[in-house]
Amino acid sequence: MPAAIHIKMATPRKNKTASRRPARTLDPTISRRLEQAGLPQALPRGHNMLPRDVVQRSQRARINEAMAGSVAAKGYAATTVTDITGLAGVSRTTFYEQFRDKEACYLACFEDQIRYLINRVHAAIATQATPAGQFVQALAAMLDAAAAEPIYAHAFIGQATTVGPNALEALLDHKARIIRVLREIDARVPRGQRARARLPLEVFEMAMHGMYEFLSTEIRAGRAARLPQRLPHMCWLWFSALGLPQWAEAALASTPAALRRRDWSEEAPAADGPGG
Amino acid sequence: MPAAIHIKMATPRKNKTASRRPARTLDPTISRRLEQAGLPQALPRGHNMLPRDVVQRSQRARINEAMAGSVAAKGYAATTVTDITGLAGVSRTTFYEQFRDKEACYLACFEDQIRYLINRVHAAIATQATPAGQFVQALAAMLDAAAAEPIYAHAFIGQATTVGPNALEALLDHKARIIRVLREIDARVPRGQRARARLPLEVFEMAMHGMYEFLSTEIRAGRAARLPQRLPHMCWLWFSALGLPQWAEAALASTPAALRRRDWSEEAPAADGPGG
Repeated sequence: MPAAIHIKMATPRKNKTASRRPARTLDPTISRRLEQAGLPQALPRGHNMLPRDVVQRSQRARINEAMAGSVAAKGYAATTVTDITGLAGVSRTTFYEQFRDKEACYLACFEDQIRYLINRVHAAIATQATPAGQFVQALAAMLDAAAAEPIYAHAFIGQATTVGPNALEALLDHKARIIRVLREIDARVPRGQRARARLPLEVFEMAMHGMYEFLSTEIRAGRAARLPQRLPHMCWLWFSALGLPQWAEAALASTPAALRRRDWSEEAPAADGPGG
Repeated sequence: MPAAIHIKMATPRKNKTASRRPARTLDPTISRRLEQAGLPQALPRGHNMLPRDVVQRSQRARINEAMAGSVAAKGYAATTVTDITGLAGVSRTTFYEQFRDKEACYLACFEDQIRYLINRVHAAIATQATPAGQFVQALAAMLDAAAAEPIYAHAFIGQATTVGPNALEALLDHKARIIRVLREIDARVPRGQRARARLPLEVFEMAMHGMYEFLSTEIRAGRAARLPQRLPHMCWLWFSALGLPQWAEAALASTPAALRRRDWSEEAPAADGPGG
């Protein structure tokens, strides 16, 4: 466990009391996510009149938090279902109603995490008019997410390769989904900007692996908070790999803050620029 | 286990017979390596007059082969010390004289593998006079090694991230050593070839992760044999990332065979070219 990851973990409760919600403070990240989703921070004890789907979504959010916290703190192999139910304040019955086993739970949480990340990427892209700006903000959104939520980043980006073959498959699928988003931006690069109209898929795969494993390595080393400082390097990697060396040079020559604010409208006339 | 990896594994022998070398055929790869190292393919049964270091190196080579074969066939977690001693034809005593446990053995074999790979890379570089040619042949050597020895590639490139934190550390160290080799070539690129004299270390790290995880993914998917066909893509990734877009374009526009034969002396005048 890297020195920089310190996670306060409540002692997991014994089974018989797990169905009563422990009095505990939610991680600020999960608390914020619950609020954004319009879900209550804590459900009333015992039977209550909340709609079933609200209860389930709240349970799922707490299970996500518990899985992330436990995997980040002690690794996937050492994490038990009892850790998760105890930390999440749900009963084993509730857990097994939703998941076949620990791995199925990890994979579901991993899927939630990638969906959340891709939503953030889409929201960042929507703020920009040019492909260059869209690339920058898409990459910035990924770096920011890892920095803002280091526990989730550690559990789902840093540790995914240690979980087993199914998580490796899921990881490949997640990379492919992010590649699709970046290829959509790439398809909007005006043809005059580069010699090649389209690049082979392998180039996207290699750059995606490069980005993901760089993130993963930095997160495992406890350097997630510094990732937003690597935005110019990340833009250099992608712009270079996509055959856009002028954009790459402009990105690497900027400070991270200046790069985020940069107006790319001259470099990349919005669309339908002169054909190459 | 990917469909394309089929490994004939002898049934591991019971402890009491493991010290007698089983009558078995060596994997052609290990057989070739023993021959290159001037080591006998099989040691005489019982006491013999061979020098102790010859015996030990032969044992080590067979343990390497056994570890690679077992990890490639059924994964690291399912591999046991008994599998290794049985397949290698060494006693448990011999095994534990050399290694503390299974993980220590894996890490030692992994280290042997990377040393072997780096030797191949250096040999490939030595055939070339220009930095561009050296890059191409260094990358080709890595792709060729994976294609020629898919079992070793699967066990040590494809599976290293699943072994545990110590193997992840070793993997980072191995990547750093390959980066050092490529940075030495990079330092010889004539200054007139690009705007930037040196690139930040992060750029090398990202490209290295991109190459390594691409290899790893292809190997796990059973496509190691096709890796040499990806030489133009791999050169594109590196040349682009290193700020050499003309070289990248020349590489991606070539067939793999033409790229290997290419004379780069015009693109990259041997050294001390005009300053940039």
